[in-house]
Amino acid sequence: MQEEEIKEKLSRIKYKLTVMSGKGGVGKSSIAAYLAVLLSKKGYKVGLMDIDLHGPSIPRLLGLKSGIMPSPSPGKAFPVKFSDNLEVISIETLMGEDKDIATIWRGPIKIGVIRQFIADIEWSDPDFLIIDSPPGTGDEPLTVAQTISDSKAIIVTTPQEISLADVRKSINFCEKVNMEIVGIIENMSGLICPYCGKEIDLFKKQGGEQIARAKGLVFLGRLPLDPKVVESGDMGDLSFLDNKESSFTKAMIEIASEVERLCTKTSV
Amino acid sequence: MQEEEIKEKLSRIKYKLTVMSGKGGVGKSSIAAYLAVLLSKKGYKVGLMDIDLHGPSIPRLLGLKSGIMPSPSPGKAFPVKFSDNLEVISIETLMGEDKDIATIWRGPIKIGVIRQFIADIEWSDPDFLIIDSPPGTGDEPLTVAQTISDSKAIIVTTPQEISLADVRKSINFCEKVNMEIVGIIENMSGLICPYCGKEIDLFKKQGGEQIARAKGLVFLGRLPLDPKVVESGDMGDLSFLDNKESSFTKAMIEIASEVERLCTKTSV
Repeated sequence: MQEEEIKEKLSRIKYKLTVMSGKGGVGKSSIAAYLAVLLSKKGYKVGLMDIDLHGPSIPRLLGLKSGIMPSPSPGKAFPVKFSDNLEVISIETLMGEDKDIATIWRGPIKIGVIRQFIADIEWSDPDFLIIDSPPGTGDEPLTVAQTISDSKAIIVTTPQEISLADVRKSINFCEKVNMEIVGIIENMSGLICPYCGKEIDLFKKQGGEQIARAKGLVFLGRLPLDPKVVESGDMGDLSFLDNKESSFTKAMIEIASEVERLCTKTSV
Repeated sequence: MQEEEIKEKLSRIKYKLTVMSGKGGVGKSSIAAYLAVLLSKKGYKVGLMDIDLHGPSIPRLLGLKSGIMPSPSPGKAFPVKFSDNLEVISIETLMGEDKDIATIWRGPIKIGVIRQFIADIEWSDPDFLIIDSPPGTGDEPLTVAQTISDSKAIIVTTPQEISLADVRKSINFCEKVNMEIVGIIENMSGLICPYCGKEIDLFKKQGGEQIARAKGLVFLGRLPLDPKVVESGDMGDLSFLDNKESSFTKAMIEIASEVERLCTKTSV
């Protein structure tokens, strides 16, 4: 019965995007959040589903308080509203006040929770469902691939080789589970020193673009490492997304437009 | 029978340390590798067990080739030797030549592999077993906690709040599974601009120390973000660990000595 419900719910969502990375700490959750916000500002209805059950970052990045609204239907709940166009679900919004409690869950429980995030949450038929997956190729992305068969992947990496090695694994994962890849985003690509203005290639550069080219995949763009964005993310402050002078913001807006273009194009 | 074998093997290893983090990409694998190398240089026999099965980094960090030596005993194998004093096991050294293949494994398979890493690998009775765990509080660290009951945790974080939120989860995990915490390491704590020499607090500072103090835990030390170390890690070049002028190396050596002191002290 849950199977039926999941299928029915998913059939009402136009575009499903899983933001994934081989390695942790490459900025995957931040990019998922910014992408969701920017698409919602374009007028799309967006659902953001945080399936990183051990280390959820989405509520903090969006400055969301916990507290989910129970639905009149038994066993159901409404997602948390970030804005009129953006609804969010994360294990953290469900866990109540103590955010320091670890979810010590083995695989099968995690699979159940992710399926409930689709079946038991009263999404209001979003145009885009953005899924923030934990790093790696384990239970969580596999559950998405098997449950949401038309989900497409956006792969995030940093330019350094140790991160690219894991991206190649993510690409291999997508091939094996038949998940189409929308494209690759290179994050933390160069850092401008706030004192002297020179660019520091902390994690080198262009590795993400090279791998996209080598694998015949779309390169969605490159985002610089901006200490101000890092600090804003820590405080749940997204106002920098309105600062059109910021080179981070400019690059992120272009990426969101490219994702929009590729999704709406291919579905025609 | 495997249970007996695991117990017997573990009884011959003096100190077991699990390097863990709540969030990915905080440098946990690098620190596990440097700690193992520095302890082995002090004359200890060290085993390094990489249980990050989806994104193993240890072989690249150490510049190890794949290729495991089968043992004369059926179903057993020798670990890969990095030096006389340091033996390593990682899923990557077992996987053969194609490093881009994703290990699309659900929890139960991962548990089995980790148990085999102990039971079926012919470790030569190391003084220290350093375990590089994937981020989070899922199957892998839980398997370690349940299989190696006297393993102690070293928790790695970066100073920014979003990483500290996950550290609090790791501390809660250790409390729940009764794993003693040796201490907390703060990584990526300040970056020196290679052009102007000024320090950039990319991810802020001191968050790790504050959390250690608040929780009554040992603060093991702070490591700066050094672009040269990042590059060396990408190439499997550990020669910077011999450069006594490097502030990263100095800090890492102090951390290794403190870990040594705390482990050998508590066992008396």
